[in-house]
Parts: sequence; C-alpha cells; structure tokens
Amino acid sequence: MSIKTFLIGRPIESVKEKHERVSKFTGLAVFSSDAMSSVAYATEEILIVLVLGGAGLLHYSMPIAIGITTLIAIVAASYFQTIHEYPSGGGAYIVAKDNLGINAGLAAGSALLIDYVLTVSVSISSGVAAITSAAPFLYKYRVMLCIISLLVITVVNLRGVKESGKIFSLPTYFFIAGIVILICVGLMRITSLQHATHPVQAHVYSDIMMIFLIMKAFSSGCTALTGIEAISNGVRAFKAPESKNAGITLIWMAIILGFSFTGITFLTHRFGILPSDNETILSQLAKTIFSQGFFYYFIQGTTFLILILAANTSFADFPRLSSIMAQDGYLPRQLANRGDKLVFSNGVIILSIFSAILMASFDGDTHSLIPLYAVGVFLSFTLSQAGMVVHWLKFKGKGWVKHIIINALGTITTATVSLVISTTKFIHGAWMVIIAIPIIMYATKKINLHYQSVSKQLSIKNAEPTEEYIHHSVVVPISGIQSAVLNAIKYAKAISGDVTAVYVCLDPVVTANVKKSWESYGMGIPLVILESPYRSIIEPLMSYIDDIRDSYKKGIITVVLPEFVPQKWWHHLLHNQTAIFIKGIILFKEGVVSTSVPLHLK
Amino acid sequence: MSIKTFLIGRPIESVKEKHERVSKFTGLAVFSSDAMSSVAYATEEILIVLVLGGAGLLHYSMPIAIGITTLIAIVAASYFQTIHEYPSGGGAYIVAKDNLGINAGLAAGSALLIDYVLTVSVSISSGVAAITSAAPFLYKYRVMLCIISLLVITVVNLRGVKESGKIFSLPTYFFIAGIVILICVGLMRITSLQHATHPVQAHVYSDIMMIFLIMKAFSSGCTALTGIEAISNGVRAFKAPESKNAGITLIWMAIILGFSFTGITFLTHRFGILPSDNETILSQLAKTIFSQGFFYYFIQGTTFLILILAANTSFADFPRLSSIMAQDGYLPRQLANRGDKLVFSNGVIILSIFSAILMASFDGDTHSLIPLYAVGVFLSFTLSQAGMVVHWLKFKGKGWVKHIIINALGTITTATVSLVISTTKFIHGAWMVIIAIPIIMYATKKINLHYQSVSKQLSIKNAEPTEEYIHHSVVVPISGIQSAVLNAIKYAKAISGDVTAVYVCLDPVVTANVKKSWESYGMGIPLVILESPYRSIIEPLMSYIDDIRDSYKKGIITVVLPEFVPQKWWHHLLHNQTAIFIKGIILFKEGVVSTSVPLHLK
Repeated sequence: MSIKTFLIGRPIESVKEKHERVSKFTGLAVFSSDAMSSVAYATEEILIVLVLGGAGLLHYSMPIAIGITTLIAIVAASYFQTIHEYPSGGGAYIVAKDNLGINAGLAAGSALLIDYVLTVSVSISSGVAAITSAAPFLYKYRVMLCIISLLVITVVNLRGVKESGKIFSLPTYFFIAGIVILICVGLMRITSLQHATHPVQAHVYSDIMMIFLIMKAFSSGCTALTGIEAISNGVRAFKAPESKNAGITLIWMAIILGFSFTGITFLTHRFGILPSDNETILSQLAKTIFSQGFFYYFIQGTTFLILILAANTSFADFPRLSSIMAQDGYLPRQLANRGDKLVFSNGVIILSIFSAILMASFDGDTHSLIPLYAVGVFLSFTLSQAGMVVHWLKFKGKGWVKHIIINALGTITTATVSLVISTTKFIHGAWMVIIAIPIIMYATKKINLHYQSVSKQLSIKNAEPTEEYIHHSVVVPISGIQSAVLNAIKYAKAISGDVTAVYVCLDPVVTANVKKSWESYGMGIPLVILESPYRSIIEPLMSYIDDIRDSYKKGIITVVLPEFVPQKWWHHLLHNQTAIFIKGIILFKEGVVSTSVPLHLK
Repeated sequence: MSIKTFLIGRPIESVKEKHERVSKFTGLAVFSSDAMSSVAYATEEILIVLVLGGAGLLHYSMPIAIGITTLIAIVAASYFQTIHEYPSGGGAYIVAKDNLGINAGLAAGSALLIDYVLTVSVSISSGVAAITSAAPFLYKYRVMLCIISLLVITVVNLRGVKESGKIFSLPTYFFIAGIVILICVGLMRITSLQHATHPVQAHVYSDIMMIFLIMKAFSSGCTALTGIEAISNGVRAFKAPESKNAGITLIWMAIILGFSFTGITFLTHRFGILPSDNETILSQLAKTIFSQGFFYYFIQGTTFLILILAANTSFADFPRLSSIMAQDGYLPRQLANRGDKLVFSNGVIILSIFSAILMASFDGDTHSLIPLYAVGVFLSFTLSQAGMVVHWLKFKGKGWVKHIIINALGTITTATVSLVISTTKFIHGAWMVIIAIPIIMYATKKINLHYQSVSKQLSIKNAEPTEEYIHHSVVVPISGIQSAVLNAIKYAKAISGDVTAVYVCLDPVVTANVKKSWESYGMGIPLVILESPYRSIIEPLMSYIDDIRDSYKKGIITVVLPEFVPQKWWHHLLHNQTAIFIKGIILFKEGVVSTSVPLHLK
C-alpha cells in the first residue's frame, strides 16, 4: 500500500472532478502533439521504402509528400464538419455506432484501441531514436530507454494528469518553432548549395514493381495523418463557442502539419539525405543545416518531448474509449470505473502492458512498427466519415449537399488509402492488425451477450418469490481435535441450533482416539463418523450433506470449515488444501453455503 | 475426471494393501535392475574421459574397472551388514538419522532424493540411446522419446504397480543372460583376433594432468555402483528368513555386476572400441561380436528394458522416501498421503516433473548428466556406513570388531570416492548437486519449524477457554437490488436475527433509487447507506464493520456476500471482483467471518 501511495499519491475526492476549458492557442498544443509529432518519422518512412528501389526512385518523395498533404486537407475538411455536428465529442466509435450501426462502431472502436497502443509504441520508439541519434552510445540501450519512458508516462497518468495546457504548450510550440526555423534556414542554405545528386544505382525494375514501391512509400508516409482526429474527440474542452474554436484550431493544425511535413521532405531530398540505421533523417537534416551546435540539440530534445506527449495523448484516449465501450457493455466492466485518482486506472495499465509487449517484441524499432500502424487509423477515418455521410442523409439541414460532398470525398479517399495500405503493407505486419480487428470485435460481442444474459437473470422481475428458509443446518467437517476445529464449532453454535460435526474415518485407531477426545472437547455437539473405503474425504462428506438436504426440503445448509491463516504465502503449500476442494464442490451445490472460519497463526 | 479414470483407473480400497514376499531368485530381479543397468553406460563413461587424454591413456580402462569392482565388493560387504542390522529396511536416511543425528539424516535424504531424479533421467536417456544406436534415424527424436518413456512410466506408476516379480524377472534375466553370452562369445573371439592396437596420438600431458584424468575416468565409472543399496532398503520384501535371503541376493548381485562390468570393459579395450556420439559402446561391442543379427537386437532391446526398469525403481523409492520424510515433518505433508490407487501420487508426479526438466535441459544426453549423478549416491553411501560404524560402537554385540572394521573400510573408501568425484567432476556439473543438497536441507528444516509451530498453536492444550459468542450480527453489503442480493438477504435471515444491509453511495441519484426499491424488496431488513468521498467501497464498509465489532465485544460478525457463479471461467474476468477483495481483507480481521452466497447463472 505504501509503494502505491508513493508512486500514485493520495486518492482524490469524486467532487473534485472538473473540466478545464482551453483557448485556441492552448488547444492547438494540447490536441496536436500526436499529429505534429509524426513529422518526426513520416518522411523517413517514405525514404526507407523508396531507397529499396534504388536512388532513381528517391525523387518521388516530393510528389508523395504533396499527395499526403492533399490527403491531410481532405481529412481535415471532413473532420471540420464532424466537429460542428458532434460538439460533445465525435470519436469514430460514436459516429460510426450512431449512424452505421453497432458493428461499424465496434470495428471503429477495435481499430482505434489497436491504434492507441501503436501510437504509444511508435511515438516512444521514435522519441528514443531522436535521443540515440544525438547520443549514439545509448543506441544499444534503446529498448530499455523505451520501457523506462513508458513506465514514467504510466505512473504520471496513474497519478492523474491535469490536462493542463501549460505542460503541453511549451514543448509543442518549441517543437513547432524549431521545425519552422529549421525549414526556413534550410531553404536559405539551398541557394548557396549546388543541387545534390544521388548516385544513380543500377536497379532495373518493372513498371508494376515501381508503382507498388511508390504506393508502399505513400502508405508509410500516411502515418503523418495519425492523430489528426484528436480535436474532433475533444471539442468539449474548448472555450465557448466550442465548435467554432475547435474548427479553427483544426485548420491551423492542418496547415502547420502540411507545411512542416512538406518542408522537411523537400529539404531532405535537396540535401541528399539517406535513411541510416542509427540516426534519424531529422537528426541528419538538423546536423547538415546547423552543424552539431545548440540548435541541433534543441531540435532533438523537442522532438523527443513532443513524441512523449504524443504517447501521452493515447493514455488519455485509450482509457476514455474503453470506458465508453465498457459502459455500453462491450468491454469488461472494470474498464468503466475511475480509480483513486479519478483516472481509468485499469485502462492505463492495460495500454501500458500492451505497448511494452509491442516495443519489446519489435526491439524498439520504429520502422518495424510502422506497417502495423496506419491500417487501424484509416479504417476508423473511413468508418467515421461514412457515418457522417449517413448522418447528413438522415438529418439533411442547411447546406447538406455541400457537407455530404466533402464527407463523401473524405470517405472515398480514406477508404482507398486503407486499401492501399492493407495491400502494400500486408506481409510486413498489417496482417496482424487485419486479423486482430475482427477478433476484438468478436470478443466484444461475446462480452455483450454475457452481460445481457447476466442482467436478465439478476433482474428482480425474474426472481423467485422470496420465501424464507424454514430450517438451517450446520455441518462442520473436522480433521481431528485442535483449536482451529474448536473455533469453528464455536462459530457454528453461534449461527444455528442444529450443528453436527463430521469426521471421515481413514484409520480405525485414530478414529477411536478422536471419538474419545470429542467427549471432553466437543462442546455438546454430536459427532458423526463417516466410513471411506477409498480414502476419499470429499465423497462420503458430500453424500452426507446430500442426505441432510433431502431431509429439510425448504431448509438451507451451511458447511463451516476450520481454516488457518498462515503468516507467509508459501506456508499454504505445506498444508493439505482439502478445504479448498470442499468449497469448490459446494460452490456448485444448490442449497448449500460454505464458510471458512479462520484461525490466525503467528 | 473421466480422463483421470481412463489413465489411472478406478480407485483401490485401503484394505487391499498387502505385501508380496519374493524369493531370492525373484528378489535379485526386482532389486538389481538399477545396479545391473549401469553396466550399459559405466564403461563408456570411463572411455569418454580417457580418450580426452589421447589413445595412450586408454589402456588404463582395465585397472580402473578392477578398482571399481573392488569398490563394489567393499560397498556390498558393508551393506551386507546393514541388511542384518536393519531387517525392516535400512535406507541411508534412516540409518544416518538413527545413528548420526537428524542433520546427517537430512543430508543423506536430500542426496538420495536428487539421486532418484538423476537415476530416472540417466536411465531413460541411456535406454533411449540403446534404441537410437540400433535405429539411428530416431537419434534426432531422442528428447521426445525420453519424454514419452517418462510419461508411460509415470502413468503406470500412478495406476499402482503391483511389484510383481514376474514383470521384473523376464527383462532382468534376459539382460543378464545376454551380457554373459556376449562376454563369453567375445572372449572366444579374442583368441582368433590379433591384439587391437590404438593409434597412439601425440598428446603430451604432465603427470598431474594424467592422474587427474584417470581419477576423473574413475569417478565416471563409479556410476556402476548406483543402485547397489536397493536390496538393503527392501529387506522386508524377502521371504523368511528375510535378512539371510537378502544378504545372499546382495552377494549374487555384486558378483554378477562385477563380472559384467569388468568383462565389458575388457572386451571393449581388446576390440579397440572408441566412444562415438551416435552409438553406445555396448552397441558397438555387440555389433563387433555378433554382427547386426538377431542377437545384436536382443542385446539392445533388453538393455532398453532394464534401463526403463531401473528408472521405474526410482518411482518406488522417491515417493517412499519422501513420504517417510514427510511423516517426520521434513517435507510437505501432501507427500505423505496415498492417492486413489494406494500410491504416493504426489511424489510420483514431482519426480516425473523434475526428471522431465533435467532430460530436456540436458538434451537427453547421458554423458552430460553423469557428472551430476554419483555425487549424491556416494554421499549417502558414506553417511549410511558411518552411521553403521556408530551403530556398532553403541550396541556392540557379537563380533562387533569385525563388523566395525568392514563398515569403517566402507566409510573411508566411499568418503574418499565422494571427494574424488566432487573434485574431478565439480566444474562439469557436480557443483549443482553440491549446492542443491544444502539448499534442500535448509528447506526441510524450515518446513519442520513451520509444522512444529503450527502444531503447537493448534494444540488444544493451548486453546483459549471455549466461551460461547453472545451475539451474532450479519452484515450484507449490496451493490444494488437484484436477485443475487435478495438471495443473500434470505440466507442472512436464516442464520441470524440481527441482519443489516449496507450500501456504499457512489452516486446520490442511484442511491436514492436503491433506497426506494429497498422498501418493496428489502424483506424487512434495515438498509444502511455509507458515504464514500474517495469512491472506495472497501474502506467505509470496513469501518462500519469495525463499529459493530466494538459494540458487541463478545459477539461474532458474519459478512454475507452475494456472489454469482458464472458458467465459464472467463466470465469471472468480466465482473468486478470487489467481493474477493472484501473477503481477502476480512480473512485477516479477528472476530469477523465472511460467507459467499452463490447464485448459479445459466
């Protein structure tokens, strides 16, 4: 208990739950860290694919970046509409469930849960890569650094993060400022540099192969869009007029994101920077432009911080989504409860465990995780926007034709991208997500069926008429005469007037001794001796209990078991656990209740 | 239950326990399989060490074999005396405990327990090697074959082996006959063969190094003595006069063992057979003498069978020794009980698990296991014979001087051999056993202390005067109004006249509803509402219970918890396990007993 208090702090009272409202300026910082942070790796992921096709393909990086920036614009426009229609927060699960039905909702929900785990893993891995690029001697400890960062984020979130704008504003704006300065200075340097030419290697590819590689590079780059939906989930956190402010913030975020991503990709191409195992593209670019001075370390440091913040947003989103799904009865109920610190602690812990497993299995390597990443994100985009199309069709309203065109364009584009990503990344890991989504959906439906069936059975409308028991018999199985047994007998006498002690005879000599001692210590309770030719204690006992049950049809039986509570857990291994077996069997016997009377050992 | 019945069979009644008495002829078969089977690998283990020193050392195999045969004679003479002094069975644990005190007894017992595990592992590995020598395509499946053999032996033993002489006699006498014929035919062949000369390799060793290697080879060969003590443990199984018959059988066993071992070593040397990875020495020898005909396969088959029987003897010895030690309170009590089939099932299962782990970790390779093997055996020999020396000193009796000389010679010899084995084999694995023995000893003493302390606390002499409880209060914590709760209330009313339902308020609106429903469904029981500013259910409940406890000093409190029993185990994960927490806390609260009233879900 004291370790928990040290790490997590004292509990917070329920009445202290309140909501902070953010301005556009702070809101941009709070909700954009996830989206903005992806510029730290998206360009690199494009180049890693293109370089497989030889240097001849590298000049496709710019067209791809422009395509992705267009995609950002389309998706942002689409979500701009969601913000105005769902001012109380329009996550993909809610929008899809409301408009397309529960299956679409569960598909979006499952995709998002996976996505949040991946956001944590990818962001932390990538953040650690920013550190190891600047300090290469740490490279071999990268998995450990990932796990330490994860633990810190987990503990901070279990303590209950005040989603204070101040904490988020500084690193986010520092990062944005750093990237903008990097791009501006980079653009000035280019004029004084000659055009970098990559050595053209002799890779000869068929057209189809080339198109496939370019599409694959595009898929990798699409990770730049992850987190773009964050503002639409958090409309309620903005100051009034909420939807208007959130919408303007979304547009600003899209502009900054598009500019940073295109700028970095352009400079990387012009400076002829190639992906390397130990150093990120962004680190190489910053080193090329600023050499290894203060500004280089500033860029690496803020990159690390914004990636950690990005991971942190999933620690708000995952527990919130899983608590909504749990309240709907599609996830275990434990996920719906707030812990000591008003945080959905179980969700935080589960997210942390899954992320740790992912980072450890993929060796803390961002590139290996990327193929799993964008599939779920784009599936939820598609479902959420298809949901909006249906929404407009149902409710129509002012300017619905324009609205429907924008959301339909969003749906078609993101659906196409989903297909491209699933195809090109399938064998590299997307298959895992494509298999996992239906499995999670199946599990959520099974869980829901169970809850429905339980609630029907527990309903008092279905309860049998509450007729009182007319008799209460107590049976105390004893293994000999010792103080735990006498303790149990004493308890049995307190709860009923009809108490019998039962002893199973395994050895006639011992039994005779027990019988004799019982006369002096038995507190006037009758002792029944049961024969057991096969040395089983359970069977004769159970048939004796059945006999009693048959003689009092409307009665209830309590089996009182003497138990001792040892001081150390391993002491349990040293005692016959017959009592546990007896309780396990009685648990399934109607009309019989078992009780252990503990004797505390020193 | 049905799988258990299929594998293990129906239970056997206690009264059917009886003892078969064996003649000298059958007794030799029953008790010698362990010792005799070691001739299948002992020669090979000597050569494997010598060959490291180059072919020049190989001619030391005969002197070593003669030394070991002398050792067999000394140890057999020593045990001959034990047989006459401990006609009811003189295992090393008993002899050492009786004469040298409990520490020596526990050391011998720990050493023997380890030894039995190793007998199983070494015998099965070696038996499988006999099979894979004859059928080399099975070599890569050897670990699997080991595990299958182990499982078969385990199941047979859990079913309850009737130690029927007939089962043992056939393979043992077939094996002995095979080996005797092999040696006789081999000796005849030698005259027609020229003396085999090994190519002398250019290994130059220092004298010390050479002596060390020879001592190491000797240590390996000492595995031939394992199992020689078996007859002294089982004197009671012989027909009257038990000691006389057992003694004569021991002498016969020693003669046959010495003859077989020396004969095989001699022939191996003369035919110039060298150890190989895939084929045993015995297989090569049989192939050289008989070529690959019927007789070759007869030797391999009976070798496999006798090694399996040898493993099987540990399945009688380990559970018996551990049950004796458990009855003395030095091992967990569960090991002392006979199962459905009158077998010490827990001991059988534990032996099987440890052997499986050993065989799997050592890749089913006899040679890697051998360095662990003889240490424990010789330690128990030494302790047992030192015990006999003390025994003679105490009781003297007819001819005690002669007796003491024989046992002292045995003690000194086996102590010396123990030291040699520990030294030469230390780094190859003997260290594991040397570390394990004191650890097991420490554990047995801790276990004993615990049992002593418990038995003192449970003793009715120390029990407080049994004053009856003057009041019985029942508290039923409820989470809402549903049929599991009504069920619990109904039970509570049956066991006491003072029942209170308790509801912890987390949400004032819900609480108001509960209060209202309670009026119609509460069966006249008062409902207490507890406030919980920190959303904890446990804390307000516990302080309420403490209050009741304080108001009835000589009373007892039962906390009745509504519980539902779901159909499938994973359904448990879907419900808040608050009841388990409550029970866990109450377990450590004096004067409070908790009871779950189950409602069975469909």
